[in-house]
Amino acid sequence: MEPKIDEVLNKELNFNIEDIKKASNLYPTPFHFYNGDKIVENGKSLMTNFQQYFPNYKNYFAVKATPNPSILKILKEQTGMGVDCSSLAELLLSEKVGFKGEEIMFTSNNTKENEYKKAYELGAIINLDDITQIEYLYSSLGNVMPELLSFRYNPGPLKSGNDIIGNPKDAKFGLTGDDLQNAYNKAKELGVKRFGLHCMVASNELDIDYFEETARLLFSTVATLSKQCGIQFEMVNLGGGIGIPYRPHQVAVNYQKLTERIYKAYKELILDAGLPQMNVVTECGRVITGPYGALITRAIHSKSTYKEYIGVDACMADLMRPGMYNAYHHVTVIDPKDPSKLKQYDLVGSLCENNDKFCVDRTLPEINRNDLIVIHDSGAHGHSMGFNYNGKLRSAEYLLLNNEIKLIRRAETYEDLFATLNF
Amino acid sequence: MEPKIDEVLNKELNFNIEDIKKASNLYPTPFHFYNGDKIVENGKSLMTNFQQYFPNYKNYFAVKATPNPSILKILKEQTGMGVDCSSLAELLLSEKVGFKGEEIMFTSNNTKENEYKKAYELGAIINLDDITQIEYLYSSLGNVMPELLSFRYNPGPLKSGNDIIGNPKDAKFGLTGDDLQNAYNKAKELGVKRFGLHCMVASNELDIDYFEETARLLFSTVATLSKQCGIQFEMVNLGGGIGIPYRPHQVAVNYQKLTERIYKAYKELILDAGLPQMNVVTECGRVITGPYGALITRAIHSKSTYKEYIGVDACMADLMRPGMYNAYHHVTVIDPKDPSKLKQYDLVGSLCENNDKFCVDRTLPEINRNDLIVIHDSGAHGHSMGFNYNGKLRSAEYLLLNNEIKLIRRAETYEDLFATLNF
Repeated sequence: MEPKIDEVLNKELNFNIEDIKKASNLYPTPFHFYNGDKIVENGKSLMTNFQQYFPNYKNYFAVKATPNPSILKILKEQTGMGVDCSSLAELLLSEKVGFKGEEIMFTSNNTKENEYKKAYELGAIINLDDITQIEYLYSSLGNVMPELLSFRYNPGPLKSGNDIIGNPKDAKFGLTGDDLQNAYNKAKELGVKRFGLHCMVASNELDIDYFEETARLLFSTVATLSKQCGIQFEMVNLGGGIGIPYRPHQVAVNYQKLTERIYKAYKELILDAGLPQMNVVTECGRVITGPYGALITRAIHSKSTYKEYIGVDACMADLMRPGMYNAYHHVTVIDPKDPSKLKQYDLVGSLCENNDKFCVDRTLPEINRNDLIVIHDSGAHGHSMGFNYNGKLRSAEYLLLNNEIKLIRRAETYEDLFATLNF
Repeated sequence: MEPKIDEVLNKELNFNIEDIKKASNLYPTPFHFYNGDKIVENGKSLMTNFQQYFPNYKNYFAVKATPNPSILKILKEQTGMGVDCSSLAELLLSEKVGFKGEEIMFTSNNTKENEYKKAYELGAIINLDDITQIEYLYSSLGNVMPELLSFRYNPGPLKSGNDIIGNPKDAKFGLTGDDLQNAYNKAKELGVKRFGLHCMVASNELDIDYFEETARLLFSTVATLSKQCGIQFEMVNLGGGIGIPYRPHQVAVNYQKLTERIYKAYKELILDAGLPQMNVVTECGRVITGPYGALITRAIHSKSTYKEYIGVDACMADLMRPGMYNAYHHVTVIDPKDPSKLKQYDLVGSLCENNDKFCVDRTLPEINRNDLIVIHDSGAHGHSMGFNYNGKLRSAEYLLLNNEIKLIRRAETYEDLFATLNF
């Protein structure tokens, strides 16, 4: 169903427009702008909602969403979240911010020895992606195992996935149900004492049913494995995948309802079944920062050929999702001359690549050169996915916190771009 | 039609296997490896084939394909090619290599003032993407115009495009036929003396008919515009877009046949019509370097869940095309233990992104840990499209030339990755 025109035009910005104008007067566009106060408020809300039911709940923020230490720092200090890392770089960043021990989850795949070593050195919770990784981890660590170990379950045909992540049985991630029992037995033999189970089979999902289903799947699996392997689970990691309302007519996941539903499943399948209590954790990234970041850009050219084009000063170097996934990002034009005068536009960057478009055939107020344009919801998987194709430079990041605007990543320079040529 | 199993397994490597083994013994995988001798041989062949018919022919190598100065240098010195730039970064690189004046074509879109200034300063041939860019260029240069100016034609519904680039009328590039006459008139009024016309509406196209059609379209347009505007064209730029045989059963474009067909169109529509001689040029990138680069990687893990997976030490940071475009890149396993033992694999990188796969359900010889794997045809749009998502580092580039292997770009380090956080 096509949304109505009002919906098309209006979507909450999650910023005070005056702050956007202030930042864009102070700093050259394009740049990513994060509302730190809102990130903290939202993060606290997720944490407290879950902690009502699961006192030891922790969300491990997926660093890949917004790998900026200033963002990680406010999440650590003001919400009590941990971090979910998928690579050595993300471990190094998290270490620098001060995360340590079991504040760090290491959920990777196709992992290298030096990554396991670093995760172990930091005391991170290691979440293995495959049964073959047990031996590999053991030898990587010099024939020891961590005390606590988790495995990532891929339920394959038991779960339907969603459009973005595809069918779980075609996903490279996780162990099959058949392998799980052997994996925990093997881990136990090698000296692992504490156990976790993880599953993540969706990305950007807004339907609460979906998360309850995943929770039910994990709790039943925990029940079965506890019996089969004679082990006690201390942690169930429900993964991430909570979506955000990129489109104006979409509705955000209600944390209160989400946690109620997950607790209901937990009560039925764990407590009522006489199993011991366990920690429930998540590793959400997108839902924490996504809506509270925006790409601020300006119209620099307009072009009328077979369609109407607005050329902006940002491009796929700054935000890849529309080009790579044909993803929707809402667009707000700041102070259009005549808000009632509408036109249909493609908003384009300057790459020699026809998918370098932020939107296609979008109805917007008429745009003039130098108009300030906000591309919504760039707070997760925005800057972090940018590339340097065509020699384009990735933009700066600014954080708004307590009414102050702070540079938290400088823009790239040509020296950065050519750095690997000088040796 | 599905290719037969022999075709699936065998595809020319464009490298001596001993050179690949030598490089991989000397340097840590993954890395991009370029066969400089073959790049030169191939580049010379394109140049001489065209020059038989068009003595002033030049291919302007599209820098975006392989923005490495060592590659640009051998193309300049050993084939006489120029460069096609689309951004300030590419102009800076080309300048550094020593390209100057009309050896440089500047074909950009949604262009910024500083880019036009640099292009003009270098004496590059400027190829405008839109009629609105005339005024913008004029004011960017301080109210002067270059002596030679070209425009990019978007034929819209007159041309069918191909699958990759989509329908020309949905492309952001170029001027409509209706705008062309006005554009040349306006340029003439502002003092432009020499004129070019450009069109590029395909990417990775293997069908010669397609290029003859484009040539016919351009030559007829030149004939019409010459009359309409009372100008003489000195250059027709047929664009790039010549494809390469990524798949084993595909056949490379025959340069001799290609140039014959283009000359036939030229003779009919230009010479026989009594128009003065003009230079025909192209701006091919992919066909020059694409087949002569390979991504060299090693199997580091194998995984058997609902499918068989081989984890390699390269990922989308090194080669994005399979993940972004679902593009086919042929895979050769070097010295498999038993070449007759075949298996169906997904070859995957380590990104937390299920599209980080180099191939899916590909029949290959059985692969063991540490086996050397060659991912073909990474010589264009390979390294240049990589990103740092998940904190992954882009790999090094090595050039084989006259039996010597030389580092031409070092691998990224964590210092590079975190450089924009230190300010």
